[in-house]
This record gives sequence, C-alpha cells and structure tokens, in this order.
Amino acid sequence: MTEIGIGIVGGGYMGKAHSVAMASVGAVFGTRLRPRLEMIAASSAESAERYRAAFGFRRAAPDWQALVNDPGVEAVIIASPQGTHREIAEAAFASGKPVFCEKPLADTMEDARAMVQAAEASGLPNMVGFNYSRTPATQFARKLIAEGALGDITWFRCEHSEDFLSDPATPFNWRCSGRANGNMGDLAPHPINAALALTGPIAKVSADLETVHAERPGGTVDNDDHAQIMCRFANGAMGHIYSSRIATGRKMGYAYEVFGTKGALRFDQEDQNALWLYEAEGPEATRGFRKILTGPAHPDYEPFCQGPGHGTGYQDQIIIEAKDFLEAIDTDQPVWPTFRDGLAVAEVVEAVMASAETGQWTEVRQ
Amino acid sequence: MTEIGIGIVGGGYMGKAHSVAMASVGAVFGTRLRPRLEMIAASSAESAERYRAAFGFRRAAPDWQALVNDPGVEAVIIASPQGTHREIAEAAFASGKPVFCEKPLADTMEDARAMVQAAEASGLPNMVGFNYSRTPATQFARKLIAEGALGDITWFRCEHSEDFLSDPATPFNWRCSGRANGNMGDLAPHPINAALALTGPIAKVSADLETVHAERPGGTVDNDDHAQIMCRFANGAMGHIYSSRIATGRKMGYAYEVFGTKGALRFDQEDQNALWLYEAEGPEATRGFRKILTGPAHPDYEPFCQGPGHGTGYQDQIIIEAKDFLEAIDTDQPVWPTFRDGLAVAEVVEAVMASAETGQWTEVRQ
Amino acid sequence: MTEIGIGIVGGGYMGKAHSVAMASVGAVFGTRLRPRLEMIAASSAESAERYRAAFGFRRAAPDWQALVNDPGVEAVIIASPQGTHREIAEAAFASGKPVFCEKPLADTMEDARAMVQAAEASGLPNMVGFNYSRTPATQFARKLIAEGALGDITWFRCEHSEDFLSDPATPFNWRCSGRANGNMGDLAPHPINAALALTGPIAKVSADLETVHAERPGGTVDNDDHAQIMCRFANGAMGHIYSSRIATGRKMGYAYEVFGTKGALRFDQEDQNALWLYEAEGPEATRGFRKILTGPAHPDYEPFCQGPGHGTGYQDQIIIEAKDFLEAIDTDQPVWPTFRDGLAVAEVVEAVMASAETGQWTEVRQ
Amino acid sequence: MTEIGIGIVGGGYMGKAHSVAMASVGAVFGTRLRPRLEMIAASSAESAERYRAAFGFRRAAPDWQALVNDPGVEAVIIASPQGTHREIAEAAFASGKPVFCEKPLADTMEDARAMVQAAEASGLPNMVGFNYSRTPATQFARKLIAEGALGDITWFRCEHSEDFLSDPATPFNWRCSGRANGNMGDLAPHPINAALALTGPIAKVSADLETVHAERPGGTVDNDDHAQIMCRFANGAMGHIYSSRIATGRKMGYAYEVFGTKGALRFDQEDQNALWLYEAEGPEATRGFRKILTGPAHPDYEPFCQGPGHGTGYQDQIIIEAKDFLEAIDTDQPVWPTFRDGLAVAEVVEAVMASAETGQWTEVRQ
Ligand SMILES: NC(=O)C1=CN([C@@H]2O[C@H](COP(=O)(O)OP(=O)(O)OC[C@H]3O[C@@H](n4cnc5c(N)ncnc54)[C@H](O)[C@@H]3O)[C@@H](O)[C@H]2O)C=CC1
Ligand SMILES: NC(=O)C1=CN([C@@H]2O[C@H](COP(=O)(O)OP(=O)(O)OC[C@H]3O[C@@H](n4cnc5c(N)ncnc54)[C@H](O)[C@@H]3O)[C@@H](O)[C@H]2O)C=CC1
Ligand SMILES: NC(=O)C1=CN([C@@H]2O[C@H](COP(=O)(O)OP(=O)(O)OC[C@H]3O[C@@H](n4cnc5c(N)ncnc54)[C@H](O)[C@@H]3O)[C@@H](O)[C@H]2O)C=CC1
Ligand SMILES: NC(=O)C1=CN([C@@H]2O[C@H](COP(=O)(O)OP(=O)(O)OC[C@H]3O[C@@H](n4cnc5c(N)ncnc54)[C@H](O)[C@@H]3O)[C@@H](O)[C@H]2O)C=CC1
Repeated sequence: MTEIGIGIVGGGYMGKAHSVAMASVGAVFGTRLRPRLEMIAASSAESAERYRAAFGFRRAAPDWQALVNDPGVEAVIIASPQGTHREIAEAAFASGKPVFCEKPLADTMEDARAMVQAAEASGLPNMVGFNYSRTPATQFARKLIAEGALGDITWFRCEHSEDFLSDPATPFNWRCSGRANGNMGDLAPHPINAALALTGPIAKVSADLETVHAERPGGTVDNDDHAQIMCRFANGAMGHIYSSRIATGRKMGYAYEVFGTKGALRFDQEDQNALWLYEAEGPEATRGFRKILTGPAHPDYEPFCQGPGHGTGYQDQIIIEAKDFLEAIDTDQPVWPTFRDGLAVAEVVEAVMASAETGQWTEVRQ
Repeated sequence: MTEIGIGIVGGGYMGKAHSVAMASVGAVFGTRLRPRLEMIAASSAESAERYRAAFGFRRAAPDWQALVNDPGVEAVIIASPQGTHREIAEAAFASGKPVFCEKPLADTMEDARAMVQAAEASGLPNMVGFNYSRTPATQFARKLIAEGALGDITWFRCEHSEDFLSDPATPFNWRCSGRANGNMGDLAPHPINAALALTGPIAKVSADLETVHAERPGGTVDNDDHAQIMCRFANGAMGHIYSSRIATGRKMGYAYEVFGTKGALRFDQEDQNALWLYEAEGPEATRGFRKILTGPAHPDYEPFCQGPGHGTGYQDQIIIEAKDFLEAIDTDQPVWPTFRDGLAVAEVVEAVMASAETGQWTEVRQ
Repeated sequence: MTEIGIGIVGGGYMGKAHSVAMASVGAVFGTRLRPRLEMIAASSAESAERYRAAFGFRRAAPDWQALVNDPGVEAVIIASPQGTHREIAEAAFASGKPVFCEKPLADTMEDARAMVQAAEASGLPNMVGFNYSRTPATQFARKLIAEGALGDITWFRCEHSEDFLSDPATPFNWRCSGRANGNMGDLAPHPINAALALTGPIAKVSADLETVHAERPGGTVDNDDHAQIMCRFANGAMGHIYSSRIATGRKMGYAYEVFGTKGALRFDQEDQNALWLYEAEGPEATRGFRKILTGPAHPDYEPFCQGPGHGTGYQDQIIIEAKDFLEAIDTDQPVWPTFRDGLAVAEVVEAVMASAETGQWTEVRQ
Repeated sequence: MTEIGIGIVGGGYMGKAHSVAMASVGAVFGTRLRPRLEMIAASSAESAERYRAAFGFRRAAPDWQALVNDPGVEAVIIASPQGTHREIAEAAFASGKPVFCEKPLADTMEDARAMVQAAEASGLPNMVGFNYSRTPATQFARKLIAEGALGDITWFRCEHSEDFLSDPATPFNWRCSGRANGNMGDLAPHPINAALALTGPIAKVSADLETVHAERPGGTVDNDDHAQIMCRFANGAMGHIYSSRIATGRKMGYAYEVFGTKGALRFDQEDQNALWLYEAEGPEATRGFRKILTGPAHPDYEPFCQGPGHGTGYQDQIIIEAKDFLEAIDTDQPVWPTFRDGLAVAEVVEAVMASAETGQWTEVRQ
C-alpha cells in the first residue's frame, strides 16, 4: 500500500461527498493507493479552513492555485462550479497531476474541448463525475446489455426529474441564470450519459426546451426548467430523454427503460437497489419483470456489505468513483468516463440547444 | 324501465366484449334502458350464427346491412375492422339509429370527417370506444385535474406499450400492413385520447416513427412498430406520447404521468385499480406519492362492488361504456367521446404522420 | 346449449353480484347451460320485486320457500345472511336442486355439518362461495404449488385485512354482534380457505382474538375485531393467518406469501392481476421476484380478454364461480369448494375459537 | 474537535463495517470527537495485522486483551462472535472504556445480565448494535408513532426474513449449531428490537420454532431455521413477529407494519429509503398509502446528501451508530439502545424459547 496526497477544490455538496469518499475508500475497497486528505481549497481561505476542520484535511489552501501547485497534493478533485473547471484542470495537468472533475465538464463547448485536449496532451488520468452510472444496479444493467441479454436495443427512455424549482413561488437564485445552471446544463448530462453508456452514441436529436416559470420573486429566469429530446442512436435505436427541475413530487427521478428484442430493463434511482429485468424466454405463464435486488453478485456491491439486499446509497456511489479514480492512477489505465466521455455528453447538449432553437433534427458531432 | 334492441356488428375481440357488456349493464347499473341482445352480424352468416349462439343474441344477421335496417335493432355497435366503420355508421344514422363505434373512428381522415358529418347531421347519439379512459381511476384523474388539484399542468407523458410483435420471428400477419393497422393506427389513439382528455387540445407535434422489424417470415411490414411524439398543448404545457407494439415485457402499458404546479398524478393500466397522487402540501417530511386504490368514492366503481380496493377489470370498462351509451340514448345528451372527439384524435394522428415525414413541428388541425 | 332456471335468495351485496354473474356468464364462457334469471327472493316480497326489476329477473318470489319450490327454478343460489343458509339449503336439496351457498356455510358448526350431510345425501351439486380463490392469479398460484414449482412448502402466511371498522367512532351496527358477524365469522374464512387450498389441511392452531373497540356509539361489541392464528399444517409446514376489520388503510388486504425449498410466491388482492414468483434457479445475479401479470396463459382469464395484462376485477371472480357451478351441474361432477370444503374451513374457525379461549394449541377436527 | 482512539475487536463482516464507519463519521457528521483508528484485534495476531493494513489502523493487537488495555484505545467496539462479548466488555469497562457491542448482547441470559450490571456499575457509555433501527426511515417511523400520528396502536407485525439457508443442500456450517447462532439468536433480535422501539414493551408471547432442514450435508442442525411469535404488548396491542433464514427469495426482509386508530405505517428494508404512511383523514377519495422517500426532512439523512430521494445504504446505518456512540461518549449521556435495551431483547428471546417448549403463553420478564 502507498499513500497518495489528495487535494479537493470545493467543500460544498460535492466537495464534502468526495472528502468522505476519500476518507473511507481505502477501508471499503482495500485500494493499493491510500488517500491522505492533504489539502482543501474553496472560494476563500476562511471557508477552506472551515472545510479542512470539518472533513479532516491536513491543510487548507488559500486558493485553488496553491492547492494545485502544492507538492503534497498528488491528485486533484474539482468540485467547484463549472465555470472554474477549465483553469483548475489545465493547471493541474500542467503540474503533472491526475484530475477528477465533477460533471458537467465545463460551462462552454470551447472550455470542454480545451480540457479534453489538456487531459490527453498530458497523458494523465482524467475522469468526470457521473456518479449515477456507478450504482451496482446500473453497472449491472450496462453489463447485461453489453452481453446481449436484451438482444438488439429497440427503445431507450431515460429521465432525470427533480422538483426543487417546481413551486413558482420559489425565489430566483443562482440556478435560475446561465445556461450551465439550467436544467440542460445541470441535470440533463446525467441521463444523456446514461443513454451513451447503455445504448451507445446518439446520432441525431430533435428537442424542445422550456422555461415554465420565467418570472420568480427576485428575478427573471433565463435558463430552461425542463427539456425533452427525441434521439436516434448510431445503432438505429430510437430513444427519448427528459430532464426537469419542476417535476412536482419527483426527488431523484433518474430512471431508465431499455427495450430489446430479447428482453427489457427498468430502473428508477429512487429505488436504487432494484433492477427490473424481463427476459422473453420460458413459458409465457411465468414471464414477468423480475425485481432483482442488488447484492454481492453485482459490481462493486460486496465491499459495502456481504449481505444481498442490504443496499447501497448515494454516498457509496462517490466511494466507487474514488476507487476507480485511484485505480486509474495506480494502473495508469484510463477509466470510463474520461474527459473525452464528458465531452461526448456536452456535444449532445450542444446539439439539443441547436435543435430546440431551430425546431429541426440536428446531428450530434462525434 | 324500457327495453332497447341492440345490434352488434362483429363478434371478435370487441364484439364479444360489447355483447357481454350489453348482457350485464342493466343489472350492474340499473339503467332505465334495458338492452335486448337482438341481432349480431359478422363477416359471414355462418360466423354470425356462431356468435349469436355463443353470446345469446336472438337472431344472427346475414350481413351488417340487414342488421342496420332491422326494425328490432334500435341501436348499433360497430366492432368490425376500421375499414368498415364508415359505411356501417352512415347507414345506421340514415336509418335513425344511435351508433357506438369502436376506435379508431376510421381508416382515413376523409372517412373520419364524413362520419362526424353524418353523425352530427343526424342529430343522433354517437360515441367512440376509448375504453381506457373509463376506468374509475382515470375518470377520477380527469376530475382531479379539472378541479385544479394539480394546479397548472406543466408536463404530460403517456405511453401505450405492448409487446405482441416484439419478437422478430413472429410471422407477418394482417396487423403488419396498412397504416390503420400499424402502431399509429391501432395503439396510439388510446394515449392521444388520454392526452386530450387529461391535458386538453394539442397545438403542435414533432414525431418520429419506425418500422423496427421490416422483414418478417411471410412478408414485408409496411406500417410502424412504434412512434414517439413531442407535443405542445394549447394551454402551453409540454408533453410526450409513445406507443409501441414491440415493447418486450409490456402487456398493457397504457401509462401516464401528469405534473402540475401543485401536484402530480401517475397511473399504469397494468395496475388499473391504483392511482398515484402527489400533493405539494403539508410538511415536507410526510409528502409522497399516495397509492389510491379505487373504491366507491370514485366514478362508476360502486355498481361493481361496494367494497373499496376490490377492483374492476377490463370487461368492466366496456360495461361502463355501455351504460354511458344507453344514457346518451335515453337522455338524448351527447356523451364524451363523440365521433367529433374521435376525429380530434385522428387529427393528431394525421399531424404525427406529417411531422414524421418532414421532420418538422406540425400544427394539429383543430 | 340448454337453458337453466336460476333462483337467487338475497339481492344485497352478493345477491346482486350473482345476478350480474348469471346474466353474463353464458356470453363470457360460452357455457353449455345458459342461465335464465327466473326468480329472486329477499326478506320481503317488496324488496324482492325491487331486485327483480333492477337485475332483470322474470319473477319475484314472496319468500325463499316459494323460490326453492318453484318448478321454474332449477338451481338455487343462497346470498342471504348466514343464519338462513341451512334451512334454505336443506329445502333446496329436498326439492332436488343444486345449491350454491355464499360463505361462510353457516352460523354454527351444527348447521354446517347438517348442511354437508344434506348435500351429500342428496347427491346434488353443491358449492360454497370463496370467490377470492378464483382469480386467475390465485388459481395459477395453486397450480404452481401443486406442480411442485416451490418445492416443499416451509412457510405460509396469509391475511385478510380491511378497515371498515377501524375508526372507533363508527357506530355500532349489525356486524358488531354475533360470532358469525365478527371478524372470525365474516373475514377469516377467506384466508383460511386460502391456506387449505394452497398448503393443505391444518393440523393444529394456536390463536389470539381481540375486540379492540368494545364500546361504540350505540352499543357494546360482542365479537372480535381481529385475530391471529399460528398453524401447523398436516404436511409439517408452519403458517400464520391474520384477519382484521380494523386495519386502517387496508381495503382488500387478502394477501399471501408461500415459501418453499425451491421458490416463493407473493400475492396481494389489492393488486389482483399480479402474482410474484421467485424461482431459486439460474445465476444469482438475475434472480428476483418476478411480477407476473395475468393473461391468457392463466386459468379463466382469456374468456374475459384476449390481451394479457388487461386485467380482471371483483365481479369477474363471481362470473368464474357461476361458470364452475353451471359446469358442476352440467357434468354432475363435484367442484371445489363443495359444502364439505366449506365445513373444513368452519372446523378451523372452531379450533381457533377454542384455542383463543384456552391459550393452548388446539387440533383441528378433520 | 478532539481525537479519540478507537479499538475494534473483530475484522469480519461487522468489524469492517465499524472500521469504515469510524473512518468516515467525522467528515460525514462533523462530530466533535474525531476517531483515530488506533488498534484492531482478531482471533490471531496475523489476521489482526491483515485487518490493520486493510482498514488503515495504526496498530494490530496480538489479542483483544492487549487492545482493551492499551492506553491509546479510548473506546472499544466489539465485533467478534457473541460468545466473546461478555469478557471483552467486562474488561473494557474495568479499564474505564466506553463499549459498543454488536448484537446480540451475549450467548446466554446470564452473560447478558452480567454485562448490563458491569456497564451500569461502570457508569460508562454503552451501546448495542441494532443498526436497522437507525435508517432515516425507521427513525422517522418511530418519531411519527411517538407523536401520535397513528393514534393508538392496534396491530404490529414485523419480520426479518433472509434465505441464506433456504437450500437444503447448503452444507452444515457454524451457523447450524448453538442456540445463539440459530435464527432466534441471530436474526430475531432485530425484529424484536423493532417491536420494542415502535410499539413498546412486550408483556407475553406464544411462539413456535422449527428446524426445517435438520439434516444437512456434513452435520445435524441443532438450532432453529425459523420462528413465529404472537405477542401482546404492555399497551394492549396485538402483534406478530416472524424471523427466518430459509425464506427463499427474501434477502433483507426486515419489514414491519404498524396499524393504529388514526393511521398506519409500512416498511421493508429491501427498499430502505421508502416509508409508507396512511393517514385516515381528508376525503376518502384521495386517501392511500403514501410512499415517502427519505430526505433532509428525516433524521440523520442530510449529512449524507442534501438531495431528497438520493438514498442511504447499509454502511450508512453503521456510520449513524458511530456518530451516536461518539456523542454518547462526548456528552456522557446514555444513547438508545444501551446494554439494558439489549437485555430487554434477550428477555423476549428467552420467553420465546420457553413458550415454544411448553406451547403456552409466556410472560416476558421486564
Ligand atoms: N455528480 C452530481 O450528482 C453532482 C454534481 N455537482 C457538480 O459539482 C460541482 C460543485 O457543485 P456543488 O458542490 O453543488 O456546489 P456548492 O455550491 O455546494 O459548492 C461549491 C464549492 O466550490 C467552492 N468554490 C467556488 N468558487 C471557487 C473558486 N474559485 N476556487 C475554489 N473554490 C471555489 C465553494 O467555496 C464551494 O465550497 C458542480 O460542477 C456541479 O455541477 C453538483 C451536485 C451534484
Ligand atoms: N377499444 C379497444 O381497446 C380495442 C378496439 N378494437 C377495435 O375494435 C374493432 C374490431 O377489432 P377486433 O374486435 O380486434 O377484431 P376481430 O378481428 O377480433 O373481430 C372483427 C369482427 O368483425 C367482423 N367483420 C369483419 N368484416 C365484417 C363485415 N364486412 N361485416 C360484418 N362484420 C365484419 C368479423 O367477422 C369479426 O367478428 C376495430 O376497430 C379495432 O380497432 C380492437 C381491440 C381493442
Ligand atoms: N364472498 C364474499 O366475498 C362475500 C360474501 N358475503 C356473504 O354473502 C351472504 C350475504 O351477505 P350480503 O350480500 O353482504 O348481505 P346483504 O345484507 O347485502 O344482503 C342480504 C340479502 O338477503 C336478504 N334476506 C335476508 N333475510 C332473508 C330471508 N329470510 N329470506 C330471503 N332473503 C333474505 C335480504 O333481503 C338481502 O337482500 C352472507 O352469507 C355473507 O357472509 C358477503 C359479502 C362478501
Ligand atoms: N448488526 C448486524 O446486522 C450484524 C451483527 N452481527 C454481529 O456481529 C458480531 C460479529 O459477527 P460477524 O462480523 O458476522 O462475524 P465474522 O465471523 O465475520 O467476524 C468475526 C471476527 O471476530 C474475530 N474473533 C473471533 N474470535 C475472537 C477472539 N477471541 N478475539 C478477538 N477476535 C476474535 C475474528 O477474527 C473475526 O475477525 C456477532 O455478534 C454478530 O451477531 C453480524 C452480522 C450482522
């Protein structure tokens, strides 16, 4: 076992999640690289110090530059707002450090492309944070599809629905402004990533976006509340993606259905430890969707618990990410999803925005 | 109570269902008009006689013309293929008889429009068979929405998914040919009707159709296997409709979700006695989707059973239709959905076909 | 096809259900014997006349004696309170007529035993109304178990929970008095019948009964509100039965679980078209409870609908009973459950009452 | 913040879980006491060293005695087999250290009582590991009941069903011998604890136990496979508890239902992030069981994730235990469940064994 000094930029929602993950991943997965919580940075030295104490880091950084350049920091996790991702990532690669960057890769296509270039030029491990694809259930779904359990995919549907802005009386806040903070920037990347992971590249899209509650107490909203996307995949399959921040009653509605010639899968993140599988075989009378509870037979479950059906949770997804990032560093092998995979998601977002603008089917740049 | 002589054209899937419904509706609902199973017609005199005996009609008709013109037949139910609907309906109205016609109204727009004209010119009761909108759950959903329980509707999603052609090895049959027999002709009218009933008129659509399994043993398929439709409703709401006959594992996947500013509804016909309601009120900690079991507190349930949660089934929907048709005749009041409502569904189908052809958003003719 | 004159005693909850069933069973099942709704009796000639008109019978009987003795009545259905069952049944057998009797067979053990004797002495078809065992799902469950799909049964749990008396403020009514009207008399026979049907004879019981709300506005309750029963089956399996009329929130909570060495079944009547099957075979990773939707592949489903997943309801159970009763008459073969089977249920009730009294395990008289 | 040196005895299933919990609890909950993974002991020095390296402890102990007496160990967690609990706990209290002990408290009643005495005599914090009562859902259930949301409890049902020994071909192993390793010793304490926590003390029980598969490859089983318990609670409520290690298909079937005069709750650990609440209020037509997804509005959820519906898992329960144990130490306040609460569970087990022996209702020693 070898120690590795971890630096995290950001101590909010995701900064905390990655801190906890780095504190426990060694014990959970018995990784060869053992994280040392070396340094944390935030928007000010004061807040960094607060996070340091709270999460158990050795040192607080005055700013992200100091963190990235510190010799004790051997790998960087970026958990600050997307507008900051590019320069932090570029600086980290420049100083020879692997980077894990929260989704979405960047604010703009230009930034996202630059980040991929920097990552690939550096030859260093790079990874983007699509945590929902790391539940044991969804990893297993991906495996089943890859192995052909569903036959040829004919229909894919995915949604990511939450309701944090469903009440028109909720005041204007930072999420209400800027394309990257809108539903397409913030939520849609998750189901788009699911689409790519489960059904493969998307060839073209036709999309519709809407700002349902344009006026809120305190300001005028300038980004989208929800969006729908009709897709044609490269393999010919049809699909639909919906994402929303105004879906009253839906809390973590990351849900997908995949239909194929031989079977089907259904999943809803609100019940993340169940995967529903239908196999078109055996007597008609005993066919049905099977509620498979995750357990040691599924990817990355056993390290959390020897017992099937005991279940993993949100935080565990981040621990799995941490394990994969450490392994990428340790083995110097790329790990899905890389920055390039993050860019592929951004390209779909780009095509969606264009299609919504023109009302036309729009090809996705590969 | 007064007897009324019923004539049914067709003794297949739906012809039987309407025969049973007419045999029991009086006892179930205590209708004032009491059906007498007077006459049944089919594609031949022989098959008509077989149906007569099986279902308990007094007489078999040599053909539908004889049935329509028979003085003992006082109301006509059309349960023969859509290609036959127009002439039977026109003849029935011409001889002064109310008509119930199975969905879809007709094979072509021209026929559908002619049928509406004939119906309205006659001033006679006319009704089209969208049975799924008659479950106690869906009737109640419609009522809740109309009363404003969900606030303003922001998102509507509906599907009708079955899998009777999901296996590519299923041989070519009559369903594989002719627009009216394809998914858009056969299945899509149900969810489109749900959209209109629950969220109101659709202003425009953008749609995608596909024949997934074009070659089947025995022939080349010339109609669609599945289709998706993005909608904008007249009230501004966004929506999506999907229908499929190749959705492996889905048997009666008529399912909808309606999201509004104050609440949401979810329903799946595969569990037709449950309606899921979320109300955005009360303490956050006790909010959730509520599984409401149908019971005497819901429309048209109590005549089937005094006990809540005891449940109604497919056949009961047809009995409810029968009751409503008899009441329309008895009171001489139009009953939803009339032929005009059936035409409204057909207009959406028409716009969908055009949009799928051009890849453009297409307005729905109102 | 041959007509058969049906006489029904009682026009309340179940009297109506059997009337509707007899009106539609011929068309649904194509039975050889075709019911003619000949005569109905009730507690007075006036109410009988009201029911006659409502349900479409030819004649109203002044009292049950007239009905039983009428030559036009060729089979008798008893849907009057349990206190009346014995004398009506005995009279019917005496005049040579097959009898269908609603559950429970009788008010007292003595009556139940006398009824079995009368039935068997007459050699006439006799049947008791445990409708819940006639859903396609439960018939299929029984078949699966009988065929060994679950291996040896190790644990059986069943409940029948409703909440019509859960509110202590509900005034005293006729259900609150008399053993036969209490939970053990009224509800428990259903799950006990399920236990016998699915797992076989019960050898001994240990039970607990309780009147939770002894004082109600208008009177003192003298029968039980809920009861639980530990069982040992003749085949060695352990089991538990619970029934309640005060289970707040449960509407039709007739639910069972059957565990065996090779698999398990779960069912809840509140979702009567789904049967959950677990088979302990195949790779661990894809095992799970399968939600089987009823369809044409299951017993007695197809006559109601050709489409799987379209679902049957409460009234359909009674139609299936009607079909089985008519077939028993037509073929002169006994059909489960006979009066003797109804007595077997009563013997369990008797043992439960004794056990609850003494606090001891009590053997069930076979 | 202050560091505290933690010593853990055992590095198996639960030893690992507590190690991970202690590594992450500080970052998750921001506890004032910050665990330092000081020392781990196991059945040999070698295995202790292996665990040390794997989980990130500073030192491995040659045996538990060394650990308990080490000055760097300031609190002890016992995660070794129940036969060892007593002497380790007594030694730890003797050296002035707070103790967290895995369930069940001990192998025998005598040991359990001695441990309570030692704990209480020491005046030191002591806690027993009933992790399932620490999910946000179950903590919230307890709170709802305590606040009277269900009114008076009338019926409580709980089960803990797994299937790790459901296959009769599974060879004899250590779990197959010794009362403490049987279903009653191993699994039943969880649902019994739930009963006490949710409904209060149990006054008397009547129980049935069974060894279903007495002969296994490699040996004769001498403890129970499953057991059922009828209860009367001190508050008068009736209840039933079932536990099983042979419930084919059930993986983590810790499930309960609590019915009261004003409402009801249902929960199943296999879907641990959902709590089903029925409130008997408002219009009948919109009543139903509500699926409440856990979120920041529920106890101990927010530290894991700011988003509702994102879910917690098995490991998180142990982190919550760790937080509560640290707080008990920090504040010197007892925290439920103490050793005395663990003894209360053992007293019920004791009464169950006696009842199963005699076939009589048996009072529970309080
Ligand atoms: N994978 C997932 O499910 C989620 C991903 N995210 C992503 O994680 C990233 C962070 O989002 P949240 O944690 O929700 O934000 P947050 O607002 O909770 O935290 C942001 C943190 O970044 C720090 N920060 C801001 N500007 C900085 C600067 N210039 N230098 C250093 N630190 C700076 C702040 O001090 C704060 O600690 C975003 O890219 C977001 O899209 C967010 C939520 C969920
Ligand atoms: N509401 C619903 O859920 C459903 C509606 N339908 C609709 O019901 C109608 C009938 O469909 P199915 O019952 O499935 O068909 P089917 O093939 O089972 O039965 C058709 C019947 O029409 C009779 N028929 C055919 N040509 C005739 C003619 N020229 N004159 C008299 N009778 C003729 C046949 O003899 C046969 O009895 C169609 O419009 C269909 O779209 C069908 C299934 C479900
Ligand atoms: N299978 C099931 O799920 C159910 C079975 N039942 C059983 O059905 C039977 C009837 O119960 P309900 O229909 O609920 O009762 P109800 O009170 O709704 O109807 C009873 C009917 O019996 C008639 N009646 C009473 N005394 C009579 C007499 N001396 N002669 C002729 N008619 C008389 C009444 O006029 C009334 O029409 C009972 O044995 C009951 O246990 C009741 C409900 C459900
Ligand atoms: N709360 C819960 O859900 C669960 C609780 N448990 C309880 O946790 C305890 C441990 O069980 P598992 O972790 O499943 O067992 P295990 O067999 O996986 O691990 C037992 C550990 O104890 C160590 N050990 C054995 N004898 C020892 C000794 N004399 N001195 C020092 N270490 C010794 C072994 O080396 C091993 O590391 C038991 O009391 C069990 O009932 C177990 C599983 C689940």
